[in-house]
Amino acid sequence: MSTPDSTDPTALPATFADPKTLDHAGLEEGTIFAPRFDANGLVTAITQEVGTNRVLMLAHMNAEALALTLSTGVAHYFSRSRGKIWKKGESSGELQRVVEMRTDCDQDAVLLLVEQTGRGAACHTGRKSCFYRVVTDSATLRDAGDPRLFDPAEVYRG
Amino acid sequence: MSTPDSTDPTALPATFADPKTLDHAGLEEGTIFAPRFDANGLVTAITQEVGTNRVLMLAHMNAEALALTLSTGVAHYFSRSRGKIWKKGESSGELQRVVEMRTDCDQDAVLLLVEQTGRGAACHTGRKSCFYRVVTDSATLRDAGDPRLFDPAEVYRG
Repeated sequence: MSTPDSTDPTALPATFADPKTLDHAGLEEGTIFAPRFDANGLVTAITQEVGTNRVLMLAHMNAEALALTLSTGVAHYFSRSRGKIWKKGESSGELQRVVEMRTDCDQDAVLLLVEQTGRGAACHTGRKSCFYRVVTDSATLRDAGDPRLFDPAEVYRG
Repeated sequence: MSTPDSTDPTALPATFADPKTLDHAGLEEGTIFAPRFDANGLVTAITQEVGTNRVLMLAHMNAEALALTLSTGVAHYFSRSRGKIWKKGESSGELQRVVEMRTDCDQDAVLLLVEQTGRGAACHTGRKSCFYRVVTDSATLRDAGDPRLFDPAEVYRG
């Protein structure tokens, strides 16, 4: 860990209450946010578009990503494939402004209500949502017809 | 594994395409459903209410739960705490009728659009949604005021 820069509030160490200090009622009905990070230090994050309530994407957050999201109001995740903090939209320009964050009954997931900026595409394929294919009863996939709002070859080149 | 009962389609073995047989384009743009189960054999499932698009809950599915959900049209999950298939609403009566299932770009998550039957409560606390608390900037929780649609002590008693 690098030393936090005291002039930058977003660099403060991420500290949350330890869920082990809460009883069942405290975890489910209390006012203490005590995210239940899994063995890899992650909680699941669902991101939903304000207004339409459309689910844009599913991702993960470690304590640092969660703290950065709360302190900056811009969605940060933890990229499991790259093993590092991922400020959503840093490459593509598709930042997400967080309007509200919620947690669930057992505090192992968060739900973000966001304003999707840029061209409005949360998915790296250029579509608004990562959930652009319908699973049929016969376990094949059908494209739901969501248009590409950007060309990924153009946005992620070089 | 018990022998599948050939008279019951819901008891058919759960077989899906192996994502390792697909290239990147096939996984992200193809028509073959090849769920990317994690090391524990699970994909993440987000469940959303048809009409309002409200996110009701987040859970997990193994291959059997996924196959049962597709074949019966009723949401089945895998309970990680109990280590077994969980037909949602079997105890509470709050079954979920699946209107549509989608998968995401890299096929490690599914999104269910459901009609929440019973009293309309997906959460075991009796509320419509498990996401009934808002996370504030100061990392405390505020109850969003969702009413309890059933009394959990009554529904889950002995």
